Amino acid sequence: MPGLTHFDAQGRAIMVNVGNKEETCREAVARGSIWMNESAFAAVRAGEIKKGDVLGVARVAGLMALKQTGQLIPLCHPLMIEKAEIDFHMDETERRIEAICRVGLHGCTGVEMEALTGVSVALLTIYDMCKAVDKGMVLGEICLQEKTGGKSGPYRRGEQA
Amino acid sequence: MPGLTHFDAQGRAIMVNVGNKEETCREAVARGSIWMNESAFAAVRAGEIKKGDVLGVARVAGLMALKQTGQLIPLCHPLMIEKAEIDFHMDETERRIEAICRVGLHGCTGVEMEALTGVSVALLTIYDMCKAVDKGMVLGEICLQEKTGGKSGPYRRGEQA
Amino acid sequence: MPGLTHFDAQGRAIMVNVGNKEETCREAVARGSIWMNESAFAAVRAGEIKKGDVLGVARVAGLMALKQTGQLIPLCHPLMIEKAEIDFHMDETERRIEAICRVGLHGCTGVEMEALTGVSVALLTIYDMCKAVDKGMVLGEICLQEKTGGKSGPYRRGEQA
Amino acid sequence: MPGLTHFDAQGRAIMVNVGNKEETCREAVARGSIWMNESAFAAVRAGEIKKGDVLGVARVAGLMALKQTGQLIPLCHPLMIEKAEIDFHMDETERRIEAICRVGLHGCTGVEMEALTGVSVALLTIYDMCKAVDKGMVLGEICLQEKTGGKSGPYRRGEQA
Amino acid sequence: MPGLTHFDAQGRAIMVNVGNKEETCREAVARGSIWMNESAFAAVRAGEIKKGDVLGVARVAGLMALKQTGQLIPLCHPLMIEKAEIDFHMDETERRIEAICRVGLHGCTGVEMEALTGVSVALLTIYDMCKAVDKGMVLGEICLQEKTGGKSGPYRRGEQA
Amino acid sequence: MPGLTHFDAQGRAIMVNVGNKEETCREAVARGSIWMNESAFAAVRAGEIKKGDVLGVARVAGLMALKQTGQLIPLCHPLMIEKAEIDFHMDETERRIEAICRVGLHGCTGVEMEALTGVSVALLTIYDMCKAVDKGMVLGEICLQEKTGGKSGPYRRGEQA
Repeated sequence: MPGLTHFDAQGRAIMVNVGNKEETCREAVARGSIWMNESAFAAVRAGEIKKGDVLGVARVAGLMALKQTGQLIPLCHPLMIEKAEIDFHMDETERRIEAICRVGLHGCTGVEMEALTGVSVALLTIYDMCKAVDKGMVLGEICLQEKTGGKSGPYRRGEQA
Repeated sequence: MPGLTHFDAQGRAIMVNVGNKEETCREAVARGSIWMNESAFAAVRAGEIKKGDVLGVARVAGLMALKQTGQLIPLCHPLMIEKAEIDFHMDETERRIEAICRVGLHGCTGVEMEALTGVSVALLTIYDMCKAVDKGMVLGEICLQEKTGGKSGPYRRGEQA
Repeated sequence: MPGLTHFDAQGRAIMVNVGNKEETCREAVARGSIWMNESAFAAVRAGEIKKGDVLGVARVAGLMALKQTGQLIPLCHPLMIEKAEIDFHMDETERRIEAICRVGLHGCTGVEMEALTGVSVALLTIYDMCKAVDKGMVLGEICLQEKTGGKSGPYRRGEQA
Repeated sequence: MPGLTHFDAQGRAIMVNVGNKEETCREAVARGSIWMNESAFAAVRAGEIKKGDVLGVARVAGLMALKQTGQLIPLCHPLMIEKAEIDFHMDETERRIEAICRVGLHGCTGVEMEALTGVSVALLTIYDMCKAVDKGMVLGEICLQEKTGGKSGPYRRGEQA
Repeated sequence: MPGLTHFDAQGRAIMVNVGNKEETCREAVARGSIWMNESAFAAVRAGEIKKGDVLGVARVAGLMALKQTGQLIPLCHPLMIEKAEIDFHMDETERRIEAICRVGLHGCTGVEMEALTGVSVALLTIYDMCKAVDKGMVLGEICLQEKTGGKSGPYRRGEQA
Repeated sequence: MPGLTHFDAQGRAIMVNVGNKEETCREAVARGSIWMNESAFAAVRAGEIKKGDVLGVARVAGLMALKQTGQLIPLCHPLMIEKAEIDFHMDETERRIEAICRVGLHGCTGVEMEALTGVSVALLTIYDMCKAVDKGMVLGEICLQEKTGGKSGPYRRGEQA
């Protein structure tokens, strides 16, 4: 498959060889959002201030999930993450909570899948904790924001395809 | 927290008691999409026909992940899924691949988180397999489509909040 | 081995048959404590009030771990936990944090191992988060507090051996 | 939080960056005990000699669990353990079984959580296998015994705080 | 695919619906063997008598793995195993160790995959523990021996296809 | 135990120290087969050409399982696999499907267990997907084919014991 590195010449799925790639300092930032109704948004906000800490639980869930990326995504390499953090922003006008996840390590392969997995599971956890109030929540705009290290050079969303 | 059932009166996260809920036949359908550039879309399409089966790998990934929902989402109950399927639709005009995941069981608690997890991990797997061609892909419109069984009655997206 | 039900007549480890046991409502409560120095205790206390929520993270860790008891303890049966909660008490005079974990389900086998696992992993998580301040912390007094349901009748610590 | 390295300046839980720490040979030893009644202690002892090998099963459980420390303790880094062993001592006068776990690797972060997890799960497994004989067993005195490697220098219990 | 129940009419992999199957008492027995050279066989035999208990470790490994069958085999349903045991026979003339695994539960789907997984991982563990002595060991004759419960009636190897 | 490196002098199971072994480029190839009846073989063959891709699912299962070898085999070290691939050959005359798994990394310990685990789980997955057509399938001839890197030098099946 032209360009799809996860297949060999016969089109068979493989875990590509990263043993010959350079071991560099690599970092990736991913982001994504969940939109919800007023009651759900207010409940999350209240927890932030006082009790019922939805975002605290979602952060832990995202951090734990990103360490398991290699077990969730079939052709991902197992990695030894060296740092990870997940942050949330609450956007009142859109009733949207944005999750931003930053992951880093020294290694032979990038960590964008780890960052994207951290974002996704953090958002799914928010869904789970708010679904009694709003079943219509939507997750979206989950994407790679930026990536450094590795042969292909830095990537910054919006600057290139 | 008013409405947030995953917290007790003191605002502490709990796994809510589902032991007193009725054991009924429950089903949930979730969906979500990934948008990509032309090269990535063409590569996936080619694999569908001939070789390099991106969607086949993504389907297996989603099915395996949804069985682990209770280990990914902190306050989800472990469940004995009785059926699960994931389907994909390729939308040429938008260069979008949609994943639809349907999960069912007889039990005391709904399976919407399983369906949403299946969709999310299937889409993340597509991202992983196409990222050498397109780093700018976006996951979005991940939501519950429909849900049957349980005390709160059926839910169908668009029909109610 | 007289009394050790996890071995057969030849002394081989087995997962005992629970298929012929009565399906009843079962609950177990376990507890345990961690002792720490003043700096660590003060840091946890501060987090409880303001930020750096050690106990919130420890609670999530314990709840997630207890769902995996059947994968950690070799001869434990996999179970479908129906409810679980972990609470903490801070004892200033002893500089001790006590974790109490309550687990319940309808099933054929008790949940004391789940409750004990929840307590242990919650305490280990507190250790992890405070170890930069105090390496000398000690976990102890981890035990079953009470147990209801099942053929052998209720157990309450202190009332019988 | 002064001293609590697992939180950022805003009090948010993070997986701290260990990428800038020195890669050294690191080792940790943890210990802990379980106290039981005479019947349980005798049954374990009998197994040691003849059959029904409680400690053999507990050792395997502890070794397997410590390899999963990064998946149990939310902010622990995944590590590539290079060696691990668990030993038991039976103290007849106290009817106490002590577990000692030694873990080592070359890496950027210490392995005390791995050693403590190995001890805890080994003791929990003993509890599981003996609970038909004694529900009143208590786990305790679980602590770090010694630690070498890393910037902060060696730690030996009793010598410093 | 005629006969292959794990695919739908379009040939897509699915987790088949077992929700409409009868909940009966089901049991499966699988077996398999590993052949080794004299040194390895003697070492295992010695451990059986005295110390270095290869088969004890292999039994625990097999029992733990079979509980995870639903996470290893993509389209297997997660199951609540109610009993499991693994036995070994040493055949001196062939220098062969045979593993027999028996698994049971009340449920809607059979447990042959659990029994086969238990056998396979037990044999792989023997391989791992003896490979310093013999790299040429071979695993084989891994098959379902017998199966009871379920609509299709009992199966006993040799009696039918 | 003479030769069995996974036990210490007292016969206790240990995870051997690999920290002092040389970090080299290591590779292992394992193979194994499954024999089936005509209907099952024809169904797999049909899927290869058209739809119902048994081998595609089995390949993903094997690749995912081999990344978890350190969690399945008690005394295996957790490893950071750098490449992995699984191939299948269909032998019409024997109605046999052979799986060949190749795994590689730079590290301190060999990857033969990973390769053998990949083969075993791939074959078990084929069994699972074909068992509605043939319960009598047999897995066998699972063995290490070749191994390079490490102190003991290359191994090639047939060339030495």
